[in-house]
Amino acid sequence: MLEHTAEESKDMELSARNQLKGVVREVKTGQVMAEITVEVEAGSVVAAITDSSRERLNLQDGDQVTVFVKSTEVMIGK
Amino acid sequence: MLEHTAEESKDMELSARNQLKGVVREVKTGQVMAEITVEVEAGSVVAAITDSSRERLNLQDGDQVTVFVKSTEVMIGK
Amino acid sequence: MLEHTAEESKDMELSARNQLKGVVREVKTGQVMAEITVEVEAGSVVAAITDSSRERLNLQDGDQVTVFVKSTEVMIGK
Amino acid sequence: MLEHTAEESKDMELSARNQLKGVVREVKTGQVMAEITVEVEAGSVVAAITDSSRERLNLQDGDQVTVFVKSTEVMIGK
Amino acid sequence: MLEHTAEESKDMELSARNQLKGVVREVKTGQVMAEITVEVEAGSVVAAITDSSRERLNLQDGDQVTVFVKSTEVMIGK
Amino acid sequence: MLEHTAEESKDMELSARNQLKGVVREVKTGQVMAEITVEVEAGSVVAAITDSSRERLNLQDGDQVTVFVKSTEVMIGK
Repeated sequence: MLEHTAEESKDMELSARNQLKGVVREVKTGQVMAEITVEVEAGSVVAAITDSSRERLNLQDGDQVTVFVKSTEVMIGK
Repeated sequence: MLEHTAEESKDMELSARNQLKGVVREVKTGQVMAEITVEVEAGSVVAAITDSSRERLNLQDGDQVTVFVKSTEVMIGK
Repeated sequence: MLEHTAEESKDMELSARNQLKGVVREVKTGQVMAEITVEVEAGSVVAAITDSSRERLNLQDGDQVTVFVKSTEVMIGK
Repeated sequence: MLEHTAEESKDMELSARNQLKGVVREVKTGQVMAEITVEVEAGSVVAAITDSSRERLNLQDGDQVTVFVKSTEVMIGK
Repeated sequence: MLEHTAEESKDMELSARNQLKGVVREVKTGQVMAEITVEVEAGSVVAAITDSSRERLNLQDGDQVTVFVKSTEVMIGK
Repeated sequence: MLEHTAEESKDMELSARNQLKGVVREVKTGQVMAEITVEVEAGSVVAAITDSSRERLNLQDGDQVTVFVKSTEVMIGK
């Protein structure tokens, strides 16, 4: 699908309910996938994204980022 | 999780690879979920999001939006 | 699929990488889905689960719970 | 997106790895979502799909169906 | 789970709402995952599937395929 | 996010509706992801999880495990 340029994504709000700011603490790359560990206030969050997305965002240790999770992906244990 | 204010989300680029611009053509609301039909160049895309996200984004017929899909969620049939 | 009894799930560790403890702060129920808001250290997390799962776990305001998210479901914005 | 006609989907094989045949045993409908319980050999599988997809497939008790799950959506507990 | 033979999948209609026809334009393989780029009318769609699914479907450049996305996986940005 | 210790996860019940017990029959590891094949009563289920989760759970051939699938991830074909 057509990707937005930076100009177009300005001020966009995303429907994904869960958004948490943090700092990249580890970047592990494979041939297809990459694993990004983000330190957030509550501990750390791990994201498995494609390595080409890691490259497109140029994700590196120390980057200030936001993690997003759609609420339909959240489970609860009690 | 802490949500971004509009100021903070400026110019953000999202790791989700598939991004497609379109126009909202139908909004169907339930008690918990909402179904949003977006007309894109290739036809239409349907999103099931929480109704509170629909309300937060104030999604309405005619709105110009972008649909996002993480590549790990895409299947292929051949 | 066959569901575990409480006895069987004792001491189980789950592959889902992201696990965060919190307290249920809001329970919104629909005919099929339910929306559970959990207060965690960093803010709040919203989960959209089936209402029958909400009923099975008897989720209520004030419950101590854990939210789980598989790392393949986490996106990053930068 | 453009939907396939029945003619076009003939003989298609899907990338989703987990496929299990069963019989619909319960259909619960809401305004936006529907919950379909499918009896399979090992017990039962519950699917939360949009109610419009339930309607499009005309899902009813006794229907012979196949449940599909992408492998990136499967978690393991040990 | 038991996989369908080609005979059994004839004429099946899938609950996943978003279906788009296209042509495979790039196949990138890793040890566990594969990334498939599909050119569709609106641009291109990237799918991250297991490499064993890529092999099972024998996905190659030029293949005519359909991409499928469940509506609960679609997010909206506005 | 903060991970549970074994003590804390005792007796926890998970909202994910689909739970099936089985035995690990194949473990395939990559740099970022791992593919785990679990033999269940109805055939086999394949899970794509991060390789670090495979390592954390020390998943090996012959392990008795449970596979979990959230109902919002299940599709139906008819």
